[in-house]
Amino acid sequence: MTETKKIKPALSKGTRDFLPAEVAKRNYIFDTIKSVFRKYGFEEIETPAIERLETLTGKYGEEGDKLLFKILNSGDFLKDAPKEELAAGNSQTTLKYIAEKGLRYDLTVPLARYVVQHQDELAFPFKRFHIGPVWRADRPQKGRYQEFYQCDADVIGSTSLLNEVELTQIYVEVFQLLGLKVKIRLNHRNVLTALIRSLDISEGIGESFLPIMDKYDKIGAEGVRKELSNLNVPEAPISMILHIMQEKDLDALSDFFSIAPEQKTGIAEIRFVLDKVNSKNVFFDTSLVRGLNYYTGVIWEVESEDVKIGSIASGGRYDNLTEMFGAQNMPGVGISFGIERIYDVMEELKLFPETISQGVKVLFVPRDEKMEDFTFKQVQALRDAGIPAEIFLGNVKKQKQFKYVEDKKIAYIVEIGENEQQSGKYRLRNTITREMQNDVGLQDIIQLLK
Amino acid sequence: MTETKKIKPALSKGTRDFLPAEVAKRNYIFDTIKSVFRKYGFEEIETPAIERLETLTGKYGEEGDKLLFKILNSGDFLKDAPKEELAAGNSQTTLKYIAEKGLRYDLTVPLARYVVQHQDELAFPFKRFHIGPVWRADRPQKGRYQEFYQCDADVIGSTSLLNEVELTQIYVEVFQLLGLKVKIRLNHRNVLTALIRSLDISEGIGESFLPIMDKYDKIGAEGVRKELSNLNVPEAPISMILHIMQEKDLDALSDFFSIAPEQKTGIAEIRFVLDKVNSKNVFFDTSLVRGLNYYTGVIWEVESEDVKIGSIASGGRYDNLTEMFGAQNMPGVGISFGIERIYDVMEELKLFPETISQGVKVLFVPRDEKMEDFTFKQVQALRDAGIPAEIFLGNVKKQKQFKYVEDKKIAYIVEIGENEQQSGKYRLRNTITREMQNDVGLQDIIQLLK
Repeated sequence: MTETKKIKPALSKGTRDFLPAEVAKRNYIFDTIKSVFRKYGFEEIETPAIERLETLTGKYGEEGDKLLFKILNSGDFLKDAPKEELAAGNSQTTLKYIAEKGLRYDLTVPLARYVVQHQDELAFPFKRFHIGPVWRADRPQKGRYQEFYQCDADVIGSTSLLNEVELTQIYVEVFQLLGLKVKIRLNHRNVLTALIRSLDISEGIGESFLPIMDKYDKIGAEGVRKELSNLNVPEAPISMILHIMQEKDLDALSDFFSIAPEQKTGIAEIRFVLDKVNSKNVFFDTSLVRGLNYYTGVIWEVESEDVKIGSIASGGRYDNLTEMFGAQNMPGVGISFGIERIYDVMEELKLFPETISQGVKVLFVPRDEKMEDFTFKQVQALRDAGIPAEIFLGNVKKQKQFKYVEDKKIAYIVEIGENEQQSGKYRLRNTITREMQNDVGLQDIIQLLK
Repeated sequence: MTETKKIKPALSKGTRDFLPAEVAKRNYIFDTIKSVFRKYGFEEIETPAIERLETLTGKYGEEGDKLLFKILNSGDFLKDAPKEELAAGNSQTTLKYIAEKGLRYDLTVPLARYVVQHQDELAFPFKRFHIGPVWRADRPQKGRYQEFYQCDADVIGSTSLLNEVELTQIYVEVFQLLGLKVKIRLNHRNVLTALIRSLDISEGIGESFLPIMDKYDKIGAEGVRKELSNLNVPEAPISMILHIMQEKDLDALSDFFSIAPEQKTGIAEIRFVLDKVNSKNVFFDTSLVRGLNYYTGVIWEVESEDVKIGSIASGGRYDNLTEMFGAQNMPGVGISFGIERIYDVMEELKLFPETISQGVKVLFVPRDEKMEDFTFKQVQALRDAGIPAEIFLGNVKKQKQFKYVEDKKIAYIVEIGENEQQSGKYRLRNTITREMQNDVGLQDIIQLLK
């Protein structure tokens, strides 16, 4: 700290600090998800925040490339950039000379790199989960940050549909544990492809078709009809599409798809998953599309039943993940929890247990400085018994002490003065119910809090 | 994934991937440390990886500024840079126009910003811990990375020496839990200051003095003698310094410092801490200096008794942390665990429990595809009972299955064929001891693994 130029403390835009109470709540979500991932045999991995730009560029489309955070090369970073490009102020042609590294944009491309790079060290099927921050140079707005967490579980190297069943079951169990009522929607890429093919419309329209269906939730049947009309799709196929999109019955759909028999697998796979999953919250939904076009099989999207905030989890099966790194294709399937939105929904619905805190159970307050020594010994005895406890070493004002127990959600408080020191009997005050227990000894407190 | 240019998968230099087994071991260290932090009332916070360069620059000395990773502004990043500076290829003068953000260099400056920015929201004394990655553009070498974890606990807003006692106790308990034999060395800045003053040597030499003492461990008494001689310190004070540096007895030192009575506080504070801490591994050591000159009170350094790797933890009391952000000075004291080195030491000494894994207890292997359905149901029953379990959906080769249980450290394996399906009785094989238990039912397995 050589220089002490005073500056106003501020965050970089689109980033956040987390207060202890927020971290406790976030950890509650993370720990819940992790416990279910682990129960299903997923193992945690970690990849670095910094990746080579070469690894990241070209994987997220042109728009994505723009949103990558690029890190300046160290030292004299301009030295390799062509002088004429610099003089012309040409950012685009200069970039590759001054930046070789970037911040990861998601956890998926790093996973692909990881699997290819470590394939000889991994046991397949490779079931990994990864929770960590990713970075996007998006314009910050409510609920959208430049640094935010992703939370993914994927199975690489297995085509078994039981993976889809397990992943659906993970959704069911996680949201059940979090107390969140959700709708888990399921579809299959083959169903969508069959739909397009059955329309007998030109390839070009086929490509515009999925994005329009994707908007079904927002723009409704009439909106879809209008947009397809604008693409010159005739009225008859439009009506059929809308009929199918509203059809939730697998058998009826199965009949429809008999005209495209190779696509029946989609229906069969959906049926397989629905049969094995034990939940009323899982639905087949032909209108579910998922923007990303690398999905090849079952796709998921999860929404809160109570808060309109868009999808709070999503996923799908894909085939070409590892291809981008020149490796043999490995089948993969994965799900993702939108933990930032899940947090917001739980906050709005007040679903976090009242008792969530970071753990201190009792605060001992010495009445004056002379009492500190004795108080400290009592607190150490509790800690030795494994009980998180604290001695208050701050401001003597009752108000400050009150803020302290309130902020840290400490359930009990004990004041220590000369009487208490002599008698070894304390008054234990419950800070929530305000109830008092008089004349309790240290062993009683240990028994109570253990 | 619009483009699929094939590139060789590679890490950015100085960064690492972590395999599941490594993450399990790292989590073992993190969880151990966190549990002790929490027991002592420290709460976890989080700050973003990205900070404004204005927040970071000038806090780590000129050398530190060079090691900051700077993030290119988004979009047309050259647009505000003066054309003549660009044309001249002047990186230094261009920097501020093209980069406003950087990656955090440590967790301490972000803590200072956080405390000042959120002071009205925090309860003081503010006891926080923070574990997370930091980034430095250092030349990578064995054991030194560009992205690595720091692990800090600090108390802000309390001058009580009991904080020092608690922090020392945290060191003792964490290393005890990790099974690591350590030497926890303690000194006080006032002792060092008294030493310099008592020498009656010029100010300039005083400043060179601490770095020389800091090397005592490496260059020994003779080395220190030589370097001080080179600074023209006379023989008599050199001998006295060396005498004092070897003096571990507080009373003897106390006598010595009677010539500088205002410095006696240093000795008194050390004595206070040593008296209250319950461990034979804590030592007073006058030769402990700690490079950072913002420390103002007790300082710590911890070394492994068995592996020579330098300090694996360190800390101290400081006064001017928040001043850099224009805030009223708040007293602070903190400790830091060098978790990357702790990992290396534990690995070298084989201190990680053999059983560390990410949790799956039993693998059920269907003998063929027909058995998958039944097997899946058994596995779900175990999971419903809270037992992490898996159905193997991979390659049928025994060798692959063996690698799977070995890599994931799964303790039990059960094969399911038609006989097992009909009888409901299984053979449970312990993959470590190779012992078998025949004819056990699902309920027996649940009881055993619970």
